[in-house]
Amino acid sequence: MADQWLETLITATPQAGYELAITLSRRGVKYTQPDPEVLHKLRPEYANSADALTAASQVIAINFQTVAAANNYWRK
Amino acid sequence: MADQWLETLITATPQAGYELAITLSRRGVKYTQPDPEVLHKLRPEYANSADALTAASQVIAINFQTVAAANNYWRK
Amino acid sequence: MADQWLETLITATPQAGYELAITLSRRGVKYTQPDPEVLHKLRPEYANSADALTAASQVIAINFQTVAAANNYWRK
Amino acid sequence: MADQWLETLITATPQAGYELAITLSRRGVKYTQPDPEVLHKLRPEYANSADALTAASQVIAINFQTVAAANNYWRK
Amino acid sequence: MADQWLETLITATPQAGYELAITLSRRGVKYTQPDPEVLHKLRPEYANSADALTAASQVIAINFQTVAAANNYWRK
Amino acid sequence: MADQWLETLITATPQAGYELAITLSRRGVKYTQPDPEVLHKLRPEYANSADALTAASQVIAINFQTVAAANNYWRK
Repeated sequence: MADQWLETLITATPQAGYELAITLSRRGVKYTQPDPEVLHKLRPEYANSADALTAASQVIAINFQTVAAANNYWRK
Repeated sequence: MADQWLETLITATPQAGYELAITLSRRGVKYTQPDPEVLHKLRPEYANSADALTAASQVIAINFQTVAAANNYWRK
Repeated sequence: MADQWLETLITATPQAGYELAITLSRRGVKYTQPDPEVLHKLRPEYANSADALTAASQVIAINFQTVAAANNYWRK
Repeated sequence: MADQWLETLITATPQAGYELAITLSRRGVKYTQPDPEVLHKLRPEYANSADALTAASQVIAINFQTVAAANNYWRK
Repeated sequence: MADQWLETLITATPQAGYELAITLSRRGVKYTQPDPEVLHKLRPEYANSADALTAASQVIAINFQTVAAANNYWRK
Repeated sequence: MADQWLETLITATPQAGYELAITLSRRGVKYTQPDPEVLHKLRPEYANSADALTAASQVIAINFQTVAAANNYWRK
């Protein structure tokens, strides 16, 4: 995966930080399974399972901890 | 998801912080499965499963760590 | 859930902090499934399962991290 | 659970801290299922399952993070 | 495992830090199951399972927390 | 378990720290199931399961967070 996709953890707003946490979570999946066709086929498996959606939200929450700390919680 | 839903991690009280952690947890699900109809159909699947409810509480706990740290634990 | 249940993360002792972590963990369940009858019916499902009890202890452990940090670990 | 079982997070050594983390993990189970007979019956279910033992070790690891931070990692 | 594979947690960029987090996650697997043939046989089992990919992403997220903190979040 | 196995969290290198995190993870299992014969019988169950190996790597990642923080991330 030669492309550059993560230049900084700093974001302008908490919401942009949350969305960066989503990107980080998806990248963890893509590094493990880089084939976009396989990922596309797996999509209904998790997008229609309550357990899988909760698990996805948990990974985002863990990454959001990192991004929020990096931004000093966007405190003024 | 163009709407703005997260302007700050700062809340007036710990309870408001806990409720923000719930919002963060639900958003993680909605970003992954944005279709409200699918989410509605999945609701009984997790709201009636002890394991799923514990998992939901765990995601909230992780997000609450972030919100509590952002608020310096609401120490006086 | 209009009632006020979380006024502070500060507790007098580590044990009171651990018990607050239990409260936080249970609230995460109640916010997701507010019907007390459903919760009552689910109780045997998790109280008699080793996996479910370990999962419950894990959520408490995560919330205890937050409460302990808030109290500066009750260091003298 | 009226007894007092957690007076401090401070321990003399890292190993005593690890053992306190085990105590914390077991208490999380006991608060959820206080009946010692049920707990006794569940024991073979998790003590003979690789997944359950890994899950138990994970809860200990989370509690050990808390105890280690409380002790400033026993740095000299 | 006599070889040296981890000399520092410091990386030049956040992306290199994320990739180090992937290395750390894979090493955790290899220390537990060092036989490359077994690992090769297990690959389709997790690379084609949405749940397994989410779990892999979660381990990366936890290791990324460590690497990001080590690098002080690559703040300028 | 009377023997002394954890005298310090301080290690000379990050790799030694990672290996200490593995020790901590295995000890969590051994405290819960001290019988070496049972542990030996369980070994194929997890060493040949992708899910179990990922879970093992996750426990190591959590313990590595603790060890890395204790060592101030081995920053020079």
